[in-house]
Amino acid sequence: MSNSEWKSVGNGHLEGPFPLPDLDPSKLTVTLSETLKLLPAPETLVFGGTMTDHMLVASFDPVSGWSAPEIKPYYATNTFEGMKAYVGPDGAPRLFRPAKNMARLARSAERLALPPFNTVALLELIKKLIVVDQRWIPNMEGYSLYIRPTIIGTRSALGVSASDHALLYVILSPTGPYFRTGPKPISLLAAAENVRAWPGGTGSHKVAGNYAPGFLPQRIAAKQGYDQILWLLQDADRWKVTEAGAMNVFIVVDREDGDLDLITPPLDGTILPGVTRDSILSLAKAHTAGKLTLPGISTNQRLHPHERAFTIADMDLWLSEGKLREMFAVGTAAVVAPVGRVGFQEDLKKPARDLVLPAYEGGLGPVSRAVRQMIIDIQEGRVEWEGWCVRCE
Amino acid sequence: MSNSEWKSVGNGHLEGPFPLPDLDPSKLTVTLSETLKLLPAPETLVFGGTMTDHMLVASFDPVSGWSAPEIKPYYATNTFEGMKAYVGPDGAPRLFRPAKNMARLARSAERLALPPFNTVALLELIKKLIVVDQRWIPNMEGYSLYIRPTIIGTRSALGVSASDHALLYVILSPTGPYFRTGPKPISLLAAAENVRAWPGGTGSHKVAGNYAPGFLPQRIAAKQGYDQILWLLQDADRWKVTEAGAMNVFIVVDREDGDLDLITPPLDGTILPGVTRDSILSLAKAHTAGKLTLPGISTNQRLHPHERAFTIADMDLWLSEGKLREMFAVGTAAVVAPVGRVGFQEDLKKPARDLVLPAYEGGLGPVSRAVRQMIIDIQEGRVEWEGWCVRCE
Repeated sequence: MSNSEWKSVGNGHLEGPFPLPDLDPSKLTVTLSETLKLLPAPETLVFGGTMTDHMLVASFDPVSGWSAPEIKPYYATNTFEGMKAYVGPDGAPRLFRPAKNMARLARSAERLALPPFNTVALLELIKKLIVVDQRWIPNMEGYSLYIRPTIIGTRSALGVSASDHALLYVILSPTGPYFRTGPKPISLLAAAENVRAWPGGTGSHKVAGNYAPGFLPQRIAAKQGYDQILWLLQDADRWKVTEAGAMNVFIVVDREDGDLDLITPPLDGTILPGVTRDSILSLAKAHTAGKLTLPGISTNQRLHPHERAFTIADMDLWLSEGKLREMFAVGTAAVVAPVGRVGFQEDLKKPARDLVLPAYEGGLGPVSRAVRQMIIDIQEGRVEWEGWCVRCE
Repeated sequence: MSNSEWKSVGNGHLEGPFPLPDLDPSKLTVTLSETLKLLPAPETLVFGGTMTDHMLVASFDPVSGWSAPEIKPYYATNTFEGMKAYVGPDGAPRLFRPAKNMARLARSAERLALPPFNTVALLELIKKLIVVDQRWIPNMEGYSLYIRPTIIGTRSALGVSASDHALLYVILSPTGPYFRTGPKPISLLAAAENVRAWPGGTGSHKVAGNYAPGFLPQRIAAKQGYDQILWLLQDADRWKVTEAGAMNVFIVVDREDGDLDLITPPLDGTILPGVTRDSILSLAKAHTAGKLTLPGISTNQRLHPHERAFTIADMDLWLSEGKLREMFAVGTAAVVAPVGRVGFQEDLKKPARDLVLPAYEGGLGPVSRAVRQMIIDIQEGRVEWEGWCVRCE
């Protein structure tokens, strides 16, 4: 039955082979968002960059016609993943630890009461899509195909209950290196004020709603000359470091015994369990266990990975003692981005105080340089490690 | 029935109150795009800015479970509108000629075999959404709420037939003036080469597929120092002007009798029937008929609006004769953008030759300045004209 057999005649029903409900404002349900966003300063607006609190949604199928329209919180149920495909030396596209992304997408969907799906099946389908659009992957170091699987809840019952219909789609976008001219230290603004606007509850899931609240602080950061926000979590009078923008963070700290501690905040529910984060922890462990050698790091240089909270005050102290060697942000887009300075601002009315990290030639310190190179070598198929790289064929 | 009652167990069916089909790669259908896009040069890639040719889609409902997954052309069936809401002097949000956008959306949906809908009902729903998110409209001149109604075909029958399910949604985004510091002349590159990559057939509809092919030429334009592409249509050995970027274009030409011709390409199926374009034609006619006076234009200065083809060669001739007074691009986003120069490039291997338009203080010539001011005054409720401005309440 084709849609062109129906016609809207304005009487509440589409005219056609049999009558179907038309779009009907009298059936509108309005579900207001419980947490309204802060309004950005008008002069900071970028075209299409900020969405309001609500959206209008209706769906059509040829059995029930147009659903009752809804005004509901923007992106109330929507989850996505970010993955990359790389071309290997043999010309075949490869995915980096894709099962991790599939598992995380399934967890996020479950958290939002979106329907479950076979993660192995989805991965197989994504591989087929990549093969179809394989010509889009630039065969150059640092270039890849960004993969964005998304699930949207497309119809909900009355009021606040979960969507029972869903749309899953995967789109692909060719992408170049995050840093066009090689890694450059980024600056972070650690703004205490903004934590309060951060909604709890879904921080460890890749949920679209998590990102929107970051737009305003991001602009505040940009206005003060910082690249990204460093997200904090208040713990009594101390400020725990959580994430930088949409990336996980690591610090490298000297130990008394000459070894190095590699510390990242623990997965306590506020931290996105990043695939790059997990990979770096694994690679550091493998290096210290002698199972692989990180490029440029002596086999005698032991790295001790820790998933452990640290605060702005800790960083301040370790810097003053000369023990804080490196800080870096990690994620699928940038892989590893060195951090050059962190502005800490307990009161938004006063200027930020900068914590300045040691500078290195080429931007990256020895540990961040080593883990970045190793991950890229694995992603692009030059190094084989524990089956992390999966060929699409 | 909640989605959380089902579980994917990997046997092709979700386990639950009753079995539902799981996501199943063996049911995959692949529909390849008939027109593959040109690959952009890798170094011109912007993160997330370019999508490949295909996408993967599956939908879920609690009766039939996961649909057979499809790989199909990206955005095969997707249409959208761009509208703006403004705050009037009385604080109430207003829409500018919204029925025009509703009619165009319905036509685009019909063209893509998406389901029909009651355009009056959709407008009513959009007004309600705007009232809910009214606080987002900055009450400052030039600021507005950008409204993006979208319809996506969400499930298609096998192969090439049309979608029979659809999702309609409307999202809102607060936005500032297109030109932050007042209108500035833009430069256009009229590149003959790129016309060939432009797919025919849907040029007069606001269809997502129309925009993607513009990304590459847009980058070519940017690389050569131009702001936008001026789209051409070959007619024997002449090059007819059609649109600038995603905007309609006008030129102002001196007549022998001292009047002015205001010329825009006709709606021959290759031109988007813009609401701003239509409004400017109406306002010029009303001015010349003495029904209103365009600000800054003498009541004796007659403007003759024409929907008529003109070519690059025409522009070149009229410039050499000193008769071509103004060129401007018009659309919902910018309202009116003056054009300062047009680079014409018949052969991409040779540099473009510039057609330089007369310069005016403040960027806008008298006609473009007048129609722009009048439209903004109507949009923001300072001038009442033929019911163009519709209050949301």
